[in-house]
Amino acid sequence: MNFSRLLKTTSALTSRWLCSGRFQSTSAAAQKLVDVSVDSKTGVSIVSLNRKPVNSLSLELFKEFCGVMDDLESEKVRGMILKSSCDNVFSSGLDITELYPHPDEDRFHAFWLWFQETWIKLYGSSFPTVAFINGHAPAGGCVLAISCEYRIMLPYYKIGLNEAPVGIVAPDWVVNSLKSVLASRKAEQLLTSGRLLDTQEAFDIGLIDKIVNNEEEALARSEEFFSTFDNVPKLARALTKQQVRKNEISKLIKNRSNDAKLFLNHILRPETQKIIGSYFKSLKDRKK
Amino acid sequence: MNFSRLLKTTSALTSRWLCSGRFQSTSAAAQKLVDVSVDSKTGVSIVSLNRKPVNSLSLELFKEFCGVMDDLESEKVRGMILKSSCDNVFSSGLDITELYPHPDEDRFHAFWLWFQETWIKLYGSSFPTVAFINGHAPAGGCVLAISCEYRIMLPYYKIGLNEAPVGIVAPDWVVNSLKSVLASRKAEQLLTSGRLLDTQEAFDIGLIDKIVNNEEEALARSEEFFSTFDNVPKLARALTKQQVRKNEISKLIKNRSNDAKLFLNHILRPETQKIIGSYFKSLKDRKK
Amino acid sequence: MNFSRLLKTTSALTSRWLCSGRFQSTSAAAQKLVDVSVDSKTGVSIVSLNRKPVNSLSLELFKEFCGVMDDLESEKVRGMILKSSCDNVFSSGLDITELYPHPDEDRFHAFWLWFQETWIKLYGSSFPTVAFINGHAPAGGCVLAISCEYRIMLPYYKIGLNEAPVGIVAPDWVVNSLKSVLASRKAEQLLTSGRLLDTQEAFDIGLIDKIVNNEEEALARSEEFFSTFDNVPKLARALTKQQVRKNEISKLIKNRSNDAKLFLNHILRPETQKIIGSYFKSLKDRKK
Repeated sequence: MNFSRLLKTTSALTSRWLCSGRFQSTSAAAQKLVDVSVDSKTGVSIVSLNRKPVNSLSLELFKEFCGVMDDLESEKVRGMILKSSCDNVFSSGLDITELYPHPDEDRFHAFWLWFQETWIKLYGSSFPTVAFINGHAPAGGCVLAISCEYRIMLPYYKIGLNEAPVGIVAPDWVVNSLKSVLASRKAEQLLTSGRLLDTQEAFDIGLIDKIVNNEEEALARSEEFFSTFDNVPKLARALTKQQVRKNEISKLIKNRSNDAKLFLNHILRPETQKIIGSYFKSLKDRKK
Repeated sequence: MNFSRLLKTTSALTSRWLCSGRFQSTSAAAQKLVDVSVDSKTGVSIVSLNRKPVNSLSLELFKEFCGVMDDLESEKVRGMILKSSCDNVFSSGLDITELYPHPDEDRFHAFWLWFQETWIKLYGSSFPTVAFINGHAPAGGCVLAISCEYRIMLPYYKIGLNEAPVGIVAPDWVVNSLKSVLASRKAEQLLTSGRLLDTQEAFDIGLIDKIVNNEEEALARSEEFFSTFDNVPKLARALTKQQVRKNEISKLIKNRSNDAKLFLNHILRPETQKIIGSYFKSLKDRKK
Repeated sequence: MNFSRLLKTTSALTSRWLCSGRFQSTSAAAQKLVDVSVDSKTGVSIVSLNRKPVNSLSLELFKEFCGVMDDLESEKVRGMILKSSCDNVFSSGLDITELYPHPDEDRFHAFWLWFQETWIKLYGSSFPTVAFINGHAPAGGCVLAISCEYRIMLPYYKIGLNEAPVGIVAPDWVVNSLKSVLASRKAEQLLTSGRLLDTQEAFDIGLIDKIVNNEEEALARSEEFFSTFDNVPKLARALTKQQVRKNEISKLIKNRSNDAKLFLNHILRPETQKIIGSYFKSLKDRKK
């Protein structure tokens, strides 16, 4: 399989689906959702999700995130730290309004392809990636975290793939991402129960790599991780990472449209809409 | 791949192969081999293997077990605990008289397809499954245990896949089941040596999840496991479990007849028959 | 998939590629690179790599090693211990002069097919294999070690897959071998950083199974491992091991020529040649 050719085909496909000129660039409006800065001491790029209040993942956020990833790829950055600009939440996961009530099929299809694209670009990035989980990371928030190469987390937050309790079935590329971090049976128990783990539990089973008390420590631990690659030529590092991850990625690339349809069919079931609806209501009630 | 369609094709195929009207129902005679009761406190179904003296796995037991699984699926039970009604033995594994001497090919083919069907239904069940290993669980007994989602075991018993010492080669769906519980190299060492582990060793390497001292504790630990799913809609839980396990299952479904032929060819080799024969004789001598 | 047929096709293919009559036999000249002796107490074959000064892996060494493996297979030996006759080095990995400067394509193709063949024969051997890592084992040295079933190591040496720092990308059968020993994410971190671990670190993450202080202890621990198979018929053991490992092996067997081309293309990139060149120079400078 010619991996880079597949990736190119994919991008072309995505562009066609989305008819979007914003694919390669980051517009001024979009920049508000994903901030990028460079740590002057280490040269590492810090990507902050900034969709207040809880970084719920919308089509627009995914699009902008993909634009940022393209920029970082072309700049051949030393490494990337993914964090949140929101208080207490790394990301709350998929924006529920993309799924409920009864999403428009075209919008949903585009939304889902951008979610896939986000995963492909993050999971398959050529440069080293660290998730600094500085807040709760349920569902899609956890997906972003496990797509990185290394996970550092603040204490007292929750992380996990709690799709099932909300009536949602994680797609198999998410399942496979988790299986590459945890043993298969552990992954199954997390997924089927949808249980959220606190920081210490997540560390104990290997879902995260380090616990830190503040951002300063997070930057220091990230730097230790990035510096393990200081003597590794970038091309060899990138191709080696690809060698480890290519099976999962190429499986999705061959199955993108079908993967979107499967998820949509499930979401549109009346029983699923009902469960998401109750959950949505409980979220709104909580805010009052 | 359309998973549920595959499963349907399979059932049709099995029925055709076996020309058996008993497939969907549990006849009075069959009920003697597999008992089902419901824990009135928890609503969980308790399935007891009851083929005295050691629950050796015969075609009739598999058939009846599959009937029970179909019933539990249609009743959408809260969960299932698999245990033994025999003293000191969870299950001794495949009934050796199905393999020796020189099994009739048609009978063997049917036997093997029902073994596959048992695994497909147990490994792929939509409801949560716990094995309460209340006795020794060698070979096929261990296969049943590792097909469940969670394993609870009494002390002082043995568990393992000791097919190789008896000259038998575990089929690859058994190997893959074990690999989803243990790391690949640990699985290989267990399989190639055929070593049986005692309860504590099994716990230490992760082959079982909990050690309990009696049935009361087993029920309490099972309840803790089942209650992790109390807030998870059944459909989402089932599809999520399927997402984790579908690769192994669909591989077997595409290869059932060939899998049976491969195993039969190996069993019919004169050297294999000789080894099983010696083992069989040693078992009979032991009983005297 | 008919595994043994695939293996035969492979051998035929290799012979054709290499037009070598030495494939099945060990010539007098070749015997100097790989010594075989038999431990009279245990009956185990001890295979010593003997290409001074550091067992760098050349086409000739691979060829001879494959001849030795064929001999051991046909003798149906009880087990094999792989060790080094060189001081302080188990094996330094691929002979860099096979890769630099600008290797001749035909020679390289043959070299790479013999490397593949070495892995296929060692990883897929029917008899039990122990690596006694009695010296440093970087890159290809580590590949040999992880292809064995069990790893015993002396203290104070280094082991790891440090291809990436030298600009080289490990082929996917090497990546998959490592993933069958270590969890996927641990494997990725070792591979992308190319970090060499000392004996204790290697033990802590499960890359090796035992630490010993001298050869006597190594033989005793090996014997403990081999004796776990004393009651296992050889054929059933061999087929069971194959059941665990066949996916990785058959993947390579279907892709040998392409795998060689991929690696060669990468090696011939000017940037890769430059990095290997600098490394080569640093090795030569060190010797002065």
